[in-house]
Amino acid sequence: MKAVLKKEKGVGFVIEDIPTPSIGDDEILVKVEVASICGTDVHIYEWNDWAQNRIKPPIVVGHEFAGVVVEKGREVKRINVGDFVSAETHIYCNHCDMCLMNHREVCRNLKILGVDIDGAFAEYVKIPERVAWVNPKEIPHKFASIQEPLGNAVDTVLAEDISGKTVLITGAGPIGLLAIAVLRVFGATKIIASDLSNYHLEIAKKVGADVVVNPLEQNIHDVVLAETHGLGVDVSLEMSGSKSALRDALKLTKYLGRVSLLGLFDKSVDVDLTNDVIFKKLRIYGITGRRIFETWEIVSSLLSSKRLDVSPIITHEFKLEEVDKGIKLMKSHQSGKILLYP
Amino acid sequence: MKAVLKKEKGVGFVIEDIPTPSIGDDEILVKVEVASICGTDVHIYEWNDWAQNRIKPPIVVGHEFAGVVVEKGREVKRINVGDFVSAETHIYCNHCDMCLMNHREVCRNLKILGVDIDGAFAEYVKIPERVAWVNPKEIPHKFASIQEPLGNAVDTVLAEDISGKTVLITGAGPIGLLAIAVLRVFGATKIIASDLSNYHLEIAKKVGADVVVNPLEQNIHDVVLAETHGLGVDVSLEMSGSKSALRDALKLTKYLGRVSLLGLFDKSVDVDLTNDVIFKKLRIYGITGRRIFETWEIVSSLLSSKRLDVSPIITHEFKLEEVDKGIKLMKSHQSGKILLYP
Amino acid sequence: MKAVLKKEKGVGFVIEDIPTPSIGDDEILVKVEVASICGTDVHIYEWNDWAQNRIKPPIVVGHEFAGVVVEKGREVKRINVGDFVSAETHIYCNHCDMCLMNHREVCRNLKILGVDIDGAFAEYVKIPERVAWVNPKEIPHKFASIQEPLGNAVDTVLAEDISGKTVLITGAGPIGLLAIAVLRVFGATKIIASDLSNYHLEIAKKVGADVVVNPLEQNIHDVVLAETHGLGVDVSLEMSGSKSALRDALKLTKYLGRVSLLGLFDKSVDVDLTNDVIFKKLRIYGITGRRIFETWEIVSSLLSSKRLDVSPIITHEFKLEEVDKGIKLMKSHQSGKILLYP
Amino acid sequence: MKAVLKKEKGVGFVIEDIPTPSIGDDEILVKVEVASICGTDVHIYEWNDWAQNRIKPPIVVGHEFAGVVVEKGREVKRINVGDFVSAETHIYCNHCDMCLMNHREVCRNLKILGVDIDGAFAEYVKIPERVAWVNPKEIPHKFASIQEPLGNAVDTVLAEDISGKTVLITGAGPIGLLAIAVLRVFGATKIIASDLSNYHLEIAKKVGADVVVNPLEQNIHDVVLAETHGLGVDVSLEMSGSKSALRDALKLTKYLGRVSLLGLFDKSVDVDLTNDVIFKKLRIYGITGRRIFETWEIVSSLLSSKRLDVSPIITHEFKLEEVDKGIKLMKSHQSGKILLYP
Repeated sequence: MKAVLKKEKGVGFVIEDIPTPSIGDDEILVKVEVASICGTDVHIYEWNDWAQNRIKPPIVVGHEFAGVVVEKGREVKRINVGDFVSAETHIYCNHCDMCLMNHREVCRNLKILGVDIDGAFAEYVKIPERVAWVNPKEIPHKFASIQEPLGNAVDTVLAEDISGKTVLITGAGPIGLLAIAVLRVFGATKIIASDLSNYHLEIAKKVGADVVVNPLEQNIHDVVLAETHGLGVDVSLEMSGSKSALRDALKLTKYLGRVSLLGLFDKSVDVDLTNDVIFKKLRIYGITGRRIFETWEIVSSLLSSKRLDVSPIITHEFKLEEVDKGIKLMKSHQSGKILLYP
Repeated sequence: MKAVLKKEKGVGFVIEDIPTPSIGDDEILVKVEVASICGTDVHIYEWNDWAQNRIKPPIVVGHEFAGVVVEKGREVKRINVGDFVSAETHIYCNHCDMCLMNHREVCRNLKILGVDIDGAFAEYVKIPERVAWVNPKEIPHKFASIQEPLGNAVDTVLAEDISGKTVLITGAGPIGLLAIAVLRVFGATKIIASDLSNYHLEIAKKVGADVVVNPLEQNIHDVVLAETHGLGVDVSLEMSGSKSALRDALKLTKYLGRVSLLGLFDKSVDVDLTNDVIFKKLRIYGITGRRIFETWEIVSSLLSSKRLDVSPIITHEFKLEEVDKGIKLMKSHQSGKILLYP
Repeated sequence: MKAVLKKEKGVGFVIEDIPTPSIGDDEILVKVEVASICGTDVHIYEWNDWAQNRIKPPIVVGHEFAGVVVEKGREVKRINVGDFVSAETHIYCNHCDMCLMNHREVCRNLKILGVDIDGAFAEYVKIPERVAWVNPKEIPHKFASIQEPLGNAVDTVLAEDISGKTVLITGAGPIGLLAIAVLRVFGATKIIASDLSNYHLEIAKKVGADVVVNPLEQNIHDVVLAETHGLGVDVSLEMSGSKSALRDALKLTKYLGRVSLLGLFDKSVDVDLTNDVIFKKLRIYGITGRRIFETWEIVSSLLSSKRLDVSPIITHEFKLEEVDKGIKLMKSHQSGKILLYP
Repeated sequence: MKAVLKKEKGVGFVIEDIPTPSIGDDEILVKVEVASICGTDVHIYEWNDWAQNRIKPPIVVGHEFAGVVVEKGREVKRINVGDFVSAETHIYCNHCDMCLMNHREVCRNLKILGVDIDGAFAEYVKIPERVAWVNPKEIPHKFASIQEPLGNAVDTVLAEDISGKTVLITGAGPIGLLAIAVLRVFGATKIIASDLSNYHLEIAKKVGADVVVNPLEQNIHDVVLAETHGLGVDVSLEMSGSKSALRDALKLTKYLGRVSLLGLFDKSVDVDLTNDVIFKKLRIYGITGRRIFETWEIVSSLLSSKRLDVSPIITHEFKLEEVDKGIKLMKSHQSGKILLYP
């Protein structure tokens, strides 16, 4: 089968024919119908520090996908051949203390699809039954692969109830854009989005941002305070990994407010905890992965009910072979979510 | 000034000229711009058992209103003449154990506007400063009087996070309809509404119900199970005060689901707690009044941001003198919310 | 091996030699060191309505136990031969919607040990690996079998934070007594226990009840109001299955209070929802089973840290063959928890 | 009356006779029976940067106290002459957005007793009725003045349910010691306390710490991991204001754990948010003040029920005139809580 490989150390991907995976007793084989590119794939392509430490080439990359089950192992019970599935990409062990306490997304023996084991940028991918999610029939197939990052967005937004809240979201890349769309559907009453890319901000407006700010062009403090009667927002979602964005988010969140952190910071961050967190009695939530499978149920429900329309966020659709083109677009910040079709 | 009075024991209201109220040091005088009729007003008109025990005529009735402050007592600090205000109608003492614990809606010395003290179906109404809510400038004036019942709806819906949930709402009278509109704005992904009045159900569809059921015409169990893959809903909101509706709601709520109770039952209700609550591990919330002032902030935010459009629910607008006409319409179940203009 | 069997329909148990179970690939075989009698075992013995509908003799009864693993199937990974284990007795499927949402205690395909499949009143019991709980080394072996009901008690108590609350607990049978001990350890500041058996109430005092009431001898309303400045308690735990106890609990819980329901009611219960739940804005939690494995972690931690001393609740220790004696004692309400040693 | 004054800018306090305060209509005059020294009083004494910016001498210092009401203003309703009261020291306006949302401890117009207005290190103190807390009769008078810092401790501990959790508490000064005692009463199952003062650690052991660590003498990482099977604690409470303690706390908190921050940091803190917060999915709570009056109810209940014994924490009792001696002891880290008697 055709597959996108990190073949060896260094920059870039290689497209090659490799054997179709053979499955174990508790695994299923999925014919990939659609996949999508994540920022993690860009890091692996670029071979950044994190990738150099984590990735052991050769490996098939990619983890966001949806497709049809074509084969199942003999112990597989819940999933059937013909099911249209996606996958939780955090392959948990089900045995460690975190798994036993239902915190599978921080399993102590976590393997990530397309990072630690062969992934989904290929004609076929195999996954253990336990991470398979059967998509509801009503779900638009085209949107099914982005449920995984949409789950991150939902988890970030719903760390606490968002209904009727004012929100600042710093970082309107693909997951930030998904979060904005989610905020709108879940009834945030004012959504202010910031990003350095005007391309991103244009999409942000389409999916529900009431106000957009490019900090290169406007003072974010002035904008947020003007929009909130000088009080700041109820909730901030930090999705950029930028230190200055984090500091803005903390300063601009109201007393007793909530901040969710999803963006990853390259290095340690200097934070004025006394004035920005303690005296304001803020609550901060670190977010990684997504609650398994609670967020999947919400995400599938949003898409199958058509409450959530993510089409403005899907800016490009390529053949699997054109993955390099997609990676380059992502790096240029001139794209939303990019789909790949094997 | 002109006022609608419960003048003496028995059925009906009287419209009369009475002296404009004179205010105390901690009170404000409001020129009523718009008021609206509540089911409680109907009970007082009809002189039902509850009314006979509670109401001491003569009294000016009505409690849902909005208007402009024309006079303030010398200790009033937060409110200014000229402010456009509404009022929390549960006039709490601020001294009892419930008030000290921020549970003012169940204050042990509660007085209710238009029930225990002179109300708002009049040209002017006086209220203590502490229950005044300054409406944001952006709020449509016409909708400002219904913030009070909208607060009940919000409190019922948000007893727990509603984002991405499937919901059954039994009872689509005026508050039920407001709750449906709120459910839609806050991202419930399937909203099933039941009511015995097709007039109500038509409005329910307009404000966001995905499915409506008239139990006189359809089997509610069949409908709900068909709409939920046979599993039942995540959340039920009981807003009818009907025993059979409650039993339906409990049976049709999924394991680990949540039920909010706002509708009042005339008598005790026979409930199969073992099978419908305990074995299903349900959570039940009794709801009365609304959180003060948390729900007011949410309600004002919904209306001033235009996220929530309640106009399909406002079916009639009358002059204050036509209050009887409004009461009769309410009794016929052929109305949504009815506004009165002094 | 020796085992206690429900051999055929009708009252009573039979002790017989039967073959030691042979295990499947995902199962473990445990040599039972200690077991304990649950009210469910009494119902099976008595052959009450529930038992007649549910139990298919012949079956080995009993589900509360602890013991040492002597054999494991070839797919078993987490558990090792020699581990000292107990078991979650709700054997969940791991495939239904409830299991996927981490609500395994209400799995739609639940099988209960000693009820639906062969149980633990025997020299050996086999269980699937997934329900095995490895007891911490520090845990007193004698207390390890009662972790299962202790989990019910913890789940009932911790439906919401109990710290610093006043509590009424109606029903001080074995699980009620465990709940009282738990309330004490978790910092309830006043614990009022009611029961019809003075034997139970004597133990209640030993494990932490501040006040005990026998409703046959005292008016529970008078006692509770006198102990709570006339205000009622913050929290009620209904653990008796008595309708009048439930009504007392609802009446005696403060506004905005919480009620947990664990006791099962034979029939429907007539409840004054309007006055006792809605106007008081109570929250009611149905409790069944226990959160898997969150409550197990708490329970093991309580016992291994010696924070919780349940020894006053263990009133009798018998040989397995003396199970009838234990059942009779349970029926007489003259016992706490009864241990059985094979 | 005799009073302890910050008379002018610079180090130190002055004891002087000044006029007894005359009260306003909504105020009460309290004869101080007992007061206690807070770290804030030490800062004012020392005239540190914060004090130089905040304090406007001359002012009577001190805010932790209890005493008997001897006079009341004509609008005072809830409080009576003869009541034994303490006071919430955050004198909120009751008019700003934070007060309206029941977040009074972060009132936008906050005045703090003994900081912004005359305080309680005097024979008499006047306070507005709204901040008075009537102590239950059963409360030991000697402990009544420390309810205010005990409220901070409770708020820090109870940011989330603590029942059955393992806890690291960094900083065992007076409030840290109160927190340890509270942790013990509320059922934390392992309490590890760290401090640089062995004097503090000795008291920590007396009030409930299972393990104490002096980071000058032992490696805190080794100790905590050894005590928690290498997994870290469920909860950390940072009460020292030390950057290295904060970093330890974040590193040593388990995945999905909770961290409360009460200690104030002089400067910004460098935090590895990616590895220590985001990838671990931690929740962080900034804590300041205490929930008004929810924590007061819990605190009074803990003391009046005798569940909590704080006597090992009260290490010194002085006459009011000996306040300097107390301040010096506090600075030497050779004291717990110090009481002052006028």
